[in-house]
Amino acid sequence: MNAIAEAVLRPSSSDVARQFDAAARAARAAAAALRDRTAEILAANEADVAGAPGLSAAYRDRLTLTPARIDAMARGLEEVAELPDPVGRTLAEWTRPNGLRIRRVAQPIGVIGMIFESRPNVTADAAALCLKSGNAVILRGGSESLRSAGAIHACLAEGLRAAGLPDAAVQVAPTADRAFVGAMLRAAGLVDLIIPRGGKGLVTRVLEEARVPVLAHAEGLCHTYIHAAADPAMARSILANAKMRRTGICGATETLLVDEAIAPSLLPLLVADLRALGCDFRADARARAICPDLPAAAEQDFATEWLDAVLSVAVVDGVGAALEHIRRHGSEHTEAIVTEDAAAAQEFLDGLASAVGMWNASTQFCDGGEFGFGAEIGIATGRMHARGPVGLEQLCTYRYQVFGTGQVRP
Amino acid sequence: MNAIAEAVLRPSSSDVARQFDAAARAARAAAAALRDRTAEILAANEADVAGAPGLSAAYRDRLTLTPARIDAMARGLEEVAELPDPVGRTLAEWTRPNGLRIRRVAQPIGVIGMIFESRPNVTADAAALCLKSGNAVILRGGSESLRSAGAIHACLAEGLRAAGLPDAAVQVAPTADRAFVGAMLRAAGLVDLIIPRGGKGLVTRVLEEARVPVLAHAEGLCHTYIHAAADPAMARSILANAKMRRTGICGATETLLVDEAIAPSLLPLLVADLRALGCDFRADARARAICPDLPAAAEQDFATEWLDAVLSVAVVDGVGAALEHIRRHGSEHTEAIVTEDAAAAQEFLDGLASAVGMWNASTQFCDGGEFGFGAEIGIATGRMHARGPVGLEQLCTYRYQVFGTGQVRP
Repeated sequence: MNAIAEAVLRPSSSDVARQFDAAARAARAAAAALRDRTAEILAANEADVAGAPGLSAAYRDRLTLTPARIDAMARGLEEVAELPDPVGRTLAEWTRPNGLRIRRVAQPIGVIGMIFESRPNVTADAAALCLKSGNAVILRGGSESLRSAGAIHACLAEGLRAAGLPDAAVQVAPTADRAFVGAMLRAAGLVDLIIPRGGKGLVTRVLEEARVPVLAHAEGLCHTYIHAAADPAMARSILANAKMRRTGICGATETLLVDEAIAPSLLPLLVADLRALGCDFRADARARAICPDLPAAAEQDFATEWLDAVLSVAVVDGVGAALEHIRRHGSEHTEAIVTEDAAAAQEFLDGLASAVGMWNASTQFCDGGEFGFGAEIGIATGRMHARGPVGLEQLCTYRYQVFGTGQVRP
Repeated sequence: MNAIAEAVLRPSSSDVARQFDAAARAARAAAAALRDRTAEILAANEADVAGAPGLSAAYRDRLTLTPARIDAMARGLEEVAELPDPVGRTLAEWTRPNGLRIRRVAQPIGVIGMIFESRPNVTADAAALCLKSGNAVILRGGSESLRSAGAIHACLAEGLRAAGLPDAAVQVAPTADRAFVGAMLRAAGLVDLIIPRGGKGLVTRVLEEARVPVLAHAEGLCHTYIHAAADPAMARSILANAKMRRTGICGATETLLVDEAIAPSLLPLLVADLRALGCDFRADARARAICPDLPAAAEQDFATEWLDAVLSVAVVDGVGAALEHIRRHGSEHTEAIVTEDAAAAQEFLDGLASAVGMWNASTQFCDGGEFGFGAEIGIATGRMHARGPVGLEQLCTYRYQVFGTGQVRP
């Protein structure tokens, strides 16, 4: 707690929110600094990569920066700078019979604690979104990317100074000590929101320990349901994209549900498509009755977020059975139905508890950029506050402004 | 956890949400049952009151039911039955350049755990709001009102049965054991939201122990600021109402801030008005320079939620100083400014971090009924999700429905 109390100058909403021009200027200046200091950042990143020899290839890839990745970070900052300011928007307004006018207005949440794993670029992306939404942020990246994060933060700090904003608006954790994460999670009254970005282990730990609200998803166990009335060509195109476009992201489909009415004709084609893309399968008995060469699924496979080129497959009897399967095994992240039957599609969408339901589109569209939010800081599956892609707008809470003419309450 | 797991049939959003007619019928039938069983409820309540002889007069008053209070409960149920259904509302809708149509739709939060102290009528009010918003609720009242809550719950259960809804939609805690509260607070995955209603001790305990999101306010340390350009008659009327209409509610003003420019002429009148209504004072040195007979305030008095006929008084130099006082001592609940100067009013409203800011109106308007929400289940001062009065609409979260024509993500 003391480390946090000392580290954080807790800005009031008005301190930062009134300075949106400054936030945009800071983001642009930070982008310029990233480009100017590319060599310096690459050197810091090389030291990080060299200092962590035991990493898996995938982890090493996420950790490694290149000139192109640094330029992409800079462009990200510039794009966020151009987005409309979310704070101060009127979300709703109405007048009471006694003449009181009530307005619901967006305001920043306050201080956001960002806890993430290997990707050093999160430092810049998260800082830009928090700054533009009037929030202050404390960034705590993985210990293996400390030098990279430090070099990127130096550019952000340069941007803040260029725009006359306080250094406290974007801070990196002063220590790699794991106890600092624990302190952040318990810093109620100093930190208003925790956003963890990383594997299920990190997110689960954060959800269990945090005394502060958390926006997160622990898993993206997404389903694509091919309904009896699906257009076969569309189904093949959407499934291939939903599963194989990128297998490691949370919006990737992990389980295919095929309606029994269409499975005999369509499932062999879907399997052939995906196999050609390098996908493996875990299929239930009814799917194996149609495609006998599919490996058999264990019950646990339907509760597994593969994050890899593996697809669980089950044959189901109609929308109700698809919903029941999703309710039993899903993670309330994103599910899609492919069908030409509008009534079936709406029944599916209304029956889901998930944050996002898709009709005739790939589950991989669950993304702040694809939703038109400009950028995202994460994806939330909780039932409180923001759900789905979390962008600038979702980084704001609201307050009421009430306009009277002397009303007193009877 | 096991007690919760056994007690709760966790309904999916669609189970309950699709049955709004049923929810309204259940509320009406429960209201009829409350009226039919008035004698039975009064007898149970008498036993509760007799069983708790050491209570303060105020606590005993909150615990005691009368035929009029039971009828008010029944009317409350009937009023909630008539409110528009909040679930399924389209909160926002837009189309992406690739043709994807995205709709943000209101849905129930899930299972709500309601923890409250003496007032047995909360049993009926909370049940009606949760039912109508498609949520299930577990009610855990104070141990001293168990018999009353049981008798009221019997009427609610009768309403559920009459409408064909599952008993699990409205449950009372099966035990007065305090450990049950602890289990509710840790029942992540079974309980989606905790709403505590009671004193600061209860709410603070809940905020500290809960592993589940909490909607709450620990204190309502509300301020009324009389600006230099206030209309004196309006200021007197608003302050008297804001402080003395009811002193024990969270929206009651606890601190008066008077601008130095108007204090010499107005403060003596404000003091005389309130004194005539039985109010006592704790004043800073600048206020006592104008009204020397006011008792001196200690610093701690400005951080005290009196919930009584006591008013802290300070003289401040302009809007900035008023905001600074509120930031240092307030609880981000409700603050009011009285002024004829629109620019000063907007500066005050924009500078607040509080959930509700009022211009030329009494702080006691911070109430779901007064906001036009039909009813309220509580008032929230957190920065996440709902803030201010929490009614039907705020008992919903949202999800996205995305309508495609076969889009796949590039």
